[in-house]
Amino acid sequence: MDFKKRARELVSKMSLAEKMSQMKFDSPPIERLGIPGYNWWNEGLHGVARSGSAACFPQAIGMAATFDPSLVFRIGEAVSKEARAKYNGYRIFGGTGIYQGLTLWSPNINIFRDPRWGRGHETYGEDPYLTAVTGAAYVDGLQGDDEKYRRVDATLKHFAVHSGPESSRHSFDVQPSKRDLWQTYLFAFDYIIRKSRVAAVMGAYNRLDGVPCCGSEELLEENLRGRMGFEGYVVSDCGAIYDFYNGHGTSPDAPHAAAQAVKAGCDLNCGGAYASLNVAYETGLLTEEDIDRSVIRLFEARMRLGMFDDDCPYNSIPKDAYDTKEHAALSREAAVDSIVLLKNNGILPLNPGKKYAVIGPVADDKLVLLGNYHGTPKKTTTLQRGIIEEVEAAGGSVLCARGCHIVCKDLGSWEENPLREALVAASEADIVIMCLGLNPTFEGEEGDGYNSQRGGDKPDIDIPEVQLELFREIAKLGKPIVFVSVSGSCLNLCEADEKADAVLQCFYPGAEGGYALADVLFGRVSPSGRLPLTFYRSTDDLPPFDDYSMENRTYRYFKGKPLYPFGFGLSYTSFSYSFKNAKKTDSGITIKLSVKNTGSRDSKEAVTLYLAAGDNEDEPPVRLIYLKKIFIRAGDEFELDCEIEQDALKYADSVGNYRMPSGSRLVLAGSCRDESAKARKIIQL
Amino acid sequence: MDFKKRARELVSKMSLAEKMSQMKFDSPPIERLGIPGYNWWNEGLHGVARSGSAACFPQAIGMAATFDPSLVFRIGEAVSKEARAKYNGYRIFGGTGIYQGLTLWSPNINIFRDPRWGRGHETYGEDPYLTAVTGAAYVDGLQGDDEKYRRVDATLKHFAVHSGPESSRHSFDVQPSKRDLWQTYLFAFDYIIRKSRVAAVMGAYNRLDGVPCCGSEELLEENLRGRMGFEGYVVSDCGAIYDFYNGHGTSPDAPHAAAQAVKAGCDLNCGGAYASLNVAYETGLLTEEDIDRSVIRLFEARMRLGMFDDDCPYNSIPKDAYDTKEHAALSREAAVDSIVLLKNNGILPLNPGKKYAVIGPVADDKLVLLGNYHGTPKKTTTLQRGIIEEVEAAGGSVLCARGCHIVCKDLGSWEENPLREALVAASEADIVIMCLGLNPTFEGEEGDGYNSQRGGDKPDIDIPEVQLELFREIAKLGKPIVFVSVSGSCLNLCEADEKADAVLQCFYPGAEGGYALADVLFGRVSPSGRLPLTFYRSTDDLPPFDDYSMENRTYRYFKGKPLYPFGFGLSYTSFSYSFKNAKKTDSGITIKLSVKNTGSRDSKEAVTLYLAAGDNEDEPPVRLIYLKKIFIRAGDEFELDCEIEQDALKYADSVGNYRMPSGSRLVLAGSCRDESAKARKIIQL
Repeated sequence: MDFKKRARELVSKMSLAEKMSQMKFDSPPIERLGIPGYNWWNEGLHGVARSGSAACFPQAIGMAATFDPSLVFRIGEAVSKEARAKYNGYRIFGGTGIYQGLTLWSPNINIFRDPRWGRGHETYGEDPYLTAVTGAAYVDGLQGDDEKYRRVDATLKHFAVHSGPESSRHSFDVQPSKRDLWQTYLFAFDYIIRKSRVAAVMGAYNRLDGVPCCGSEELLEENLRGRMGFEGYVVSDCGAIYDFYNGHGTSPDAPHAAAQAVKAGCDLNCGGAYASLNVAYETGLLTEEDIDRSVIRLFEARMRLGMFDDDCPYNSIPKDAYDTKEHAALSREAAVDSIVLLKNNGILPLNPGKKYAVIGPVADDKLVLLGNYHGTPKKTTTLQRGIIEEVEAAGGSVLCARGCHIVCKDLGSWEENPLREALVAASEADIVIMCLGLNPTFEGEEGDGYNSQRGGDKPDIDIPEVQLELFREIAKLGKPIVFVSVSGSCLNLCEADEKADAVLQCFYPGAEGGYALADVLFGRVSPSGRLPLTFYRSTDDLPPFDDYSMENRTYRYFKGKPLYPFGFGLSYTSFSYSFKNAKKTDSGITIKLSVKNTGSRDSKEAVTLYLAAGDNEDEPPVRLIYLKKIFIRAGDEFELDCEIEQDALKYADSVGNYRMPSGSRLVLAGSCRDESAKARKIIQL
Repeated sequence: MDFKKRARELVSKMSLAEKMSQMKFDSPPIERLGIPGYNWWNEGLHGVARSGSAACFPQAIGMAATFDPSLVFRIGEAVSKEARAKYNGYRIFGGTGIYQGLTLWSPNINIFRDPRWGRGHETYGEDPYLTAVTGAAYVDGLQGDDEKYRRVDATLKHFAVHSGPESSRHSFDVQPSKRDLWQTYLFAFDYIIRKSRVAAVMGAYNRLDGVPCCGSEELLEENLRGRMGFEGYVVSDCGAIYDFYNGHGTSPDAPHAAAQAVKAGCDLNCGGAYASLNVAYETGLLTEEDIDRSVIRLFEARMRLGMFDDDCPYNSIPKDAYDTKEHAALSREAAVDSIVLLKNNGILPLNPGKKYAVIGPVADDKLVLLGNYHGTPKKTTTLQRGIIEEVEAAGGSVLCARGCHIVCKDLGSWEENPLREALVAASEADIVIMCLGLNPTFEGEEGDGYNSQRGGDKPDIDIPEVQLELFREIAKLGKPIVFVSVSGSCLNLCEADEKADAVLQCFYPGAEGGYALADVLFGRVSPSGRLPLTFYRSTDDLPPFDDYSMENRTYRYFKGKPLYPFGFGLSYTSFSYSFKNAKKTDSGITIKLSVKNTGSRDSKEAVTLYLAAGDNEDEPPVRLIYLKKIFIRAGDEFELDCEIEQDALKYADSVGNYRMPSGSRLVLAGSCRDESAKARKIIQL
């Protein structure tokens, strides 16, 4: 019997009150029907989160920086296996509580539209196609490939057009153009829903064209279930339905808000508004059929997770198979591949046998490893510790100095003043490694980024003044400097680029971050990360933060000159690219590309192709259409059939319909910028 | 020319205003005389503190628990060398600021009178003689043995009779009996001042017999400089002179308070009160001679530190010789020796090849490594990490679970609930290692122990209820449990003793704490720590916290039955003791003692002797008179000449005069309790 049918049958045995109770995220048991209590809320953005010990992989933005969906798929597999292991332990207690279930409210596939957004590090960056393929890989890894059962449910969030400001998220209204809506904001949702049969979608807090997203029939019925073909369930963001009558003022009270959400197709409520479903029903705002539709979807999902069957193969995942050595190794591999080398005058890789000074307020900060929505890995290795272990093992030595606070300049008269120590350490060292930037208390979700002065968001992209002053003072000493920028977002690295001998971007790298940084710094691995974001010079070059038009935003539309463009990243070796023939196929177009490692080190290389719009003003001027990470030994040449899918090529017109480009078009390899492309080819579309 | 004479000469060239300026802890430069600015405030309780990267040794209470003054001496040497290294770096900048100088306001040799005192972990415990010999060793290690120069200045604090409550320290008045004063509160000050030529003493906040300690002529002139023969300088605790007119109400204003302090012999002011010295002078409360006396003392000290000479041998200590590998190794050795094994049913040492669950909220807490008044060691290894590294290297495995918060029971409905994870982890493991207790935010100085609900102090000695509940739940599973108690003070371990297979006390163990705990748990080293405190069953057995009478306090006077007595500590081997002859000498009495390692493991052993008072009611009923840590290989026998010094034997009579005991007296070896002594001998005094 299929799950839909079984779900319908089970739900038909419930009273109306029982049905309504199951639409709350903390669904109570229905003992007479053998239904255990189940709390739907769990998190797995880059590891099982908030449920104790668990592997902690690089933050989502770092996963995107690997430019390697196959690696992200493996992370998704690992995370879901850990979630299953934990669930297998927890379910023995009867009903499972918060953060103990199989329904992960991840990934966050919103577009990192503006670098000030505090939650940007939860996303896969600024590009819809990179977000789509990375998100699809993560969802596929999470959900597994069993024909009958899902390993866990993935949840795409936040649907839709949601990227700050955090401080007004419970009340703001976005009215994007139809082109921006489909070209940018809905692209990855559409892509992943069609490719990956994702179990769930979470509605956003904000309004879209005046209607709260969790109560929008246009969004949830017409676009999500209609145009995209979504067949799963929709959950509200936490408290989002409460916002209808408190933040947005679009509903008079909870019963109206709840009724509007259910009617629109929001099946599950995180928050308390669905406690009013009975009132909504009694006052005629809802019918029992409305309720049935949602509850059946929810029970179909629980059945597909094997909660009511003994033959679910995932029941045999051992209860202790979390935070494992294997997953730590995968986390380290991913962290290595997420580090982006932005400048290198030849100083890197470093010889570990020297005398180093590691300086900066985030060097020994455990928080920068974890990002947000994280677990509690049993072993964490800070950037500083990773460097120390590598150097001391090689007979070198390390002096460490915090140098300053992350943001706070003012030191009480009885407080430690760490600047002099940093200057002494740098003076004594052969080479200085500066670890500067932010931690997730300065950029994050409302309430979570509690050190932010903008409700979780950043006021700008500048490195905090107190850290820049530290950097300037150290730079005056004239020692070689390796600048490690640590953040989950774009920072203004102009001064680092100018004064340091090498610059690396280290997104919140997970529990193994210190080992990974050492792997890269000391040349055990050649760096291969790529920026999933434009690194601007200043937010002055951008529209206001709350402007949702894509005009002059992200590499696709930005008119200024970035410091480091989207997709940028150096290596310890060099590659030459040459295009061969291109061939149209049923599913798109295939371009043969030869990539040769012309340097002296083995390395991974993220092969990227970009399509220029030419004179078609309906398209973004340039956009990513292909990515593939390959490993090439020094001297080897690799011939690659770049299969470009139609979904990568399509663009949205002014009314939001997707169209295929045609005619003769320029393809760039290795850079989104014509002047720095590694190869160029005109193809016929 | 001797330093005193040079100081007098230099001071004679200063104007009165210049002289007064030098009595503030942040002494400004006097450029015309070539005197750089100097901030006297630095800390080195168990490592250079608040000055960035520095080795972090076990907290003072842990140093005392080694029962090994020779080891404490080596720690003192290491700390002072690091302070010099840092000073050599800092002084290049001109004047040295706060926490950059050579005058360490350590050690804290107050008696840990009551286990509720938050700052107790800064002390060497409850016994005057242990405090005296440990403190003397630390001071000797700090100050060095150069004939001309001191490596650093040690500062004995807080003079005197100071041990909480923190919440009333700026106003309380203590009126101890003369016997308690000299037998308990002043004993270690007297001992160290006479043996170690300590550079400085810090006056306490409180009043003694109605007079604020920093303004007491009886205390500072008669007793300290007179009876004890102290020749150094006195510094006020920070803000203590302000307290005269704000907390104690014994002075009308700052000029009167400052004048009283200077007249009494308090040479240096931490705080702002000495800004009023000019007013005090102008109104006739002070003479220039009063000022001169103090300033000359201070400059003599600065000269003795080599601040005005090029031939000071400590100038050649390399600027990078801090937080070194050698000191980390010493820290690990000390941490190992500070761990006290309290119960072992044979489960210890553990086989690292098994499957472990490490459970508890302090297991991965960096704060428990550092204690208070700490530096920022560049590498810290939590208890959990130490265990993981050891076990994984041996092919075993470790599951970790926090289990609960340290104190807070209430979990928000959207918060992680960690109990189930702990139960799962324990169920999956062969052996459970529970790390429970406190961290220094729950017991510490006013303001510093910010999570304490008693202004830094503890309300009682009970393990927080939420942790006990966790322990009880885990214990119900019936797995073998090793209970690691983590705190800087006595906790009530009755339930641990009853239910766990092994119990260890781990005082805040320093940066290498995790490695040290693993060394002990897995048998690389046999434990040899001893309790420097009585482990009571309940504070109900004690007088009120603010009662300063020693009646029914500490092992010397306690009438109840403790859970674990002062000096207690087990080993992985066994020792047999036998007394040989005793012989009076010029300096005391020497007793020959044979100690045999009768077990199968090499081990250190802290040899202790206690003197029973017999029917002399003027003496404490029993007291420590000798300690010596020795290393004995399995099967070996060691013959020890226990040289008991007269200072150990003397006692204070009811008017506070020291007297020597006489007649035939019982000496106990290995325990302060007759029934558990390892050997007994009657000697003639």
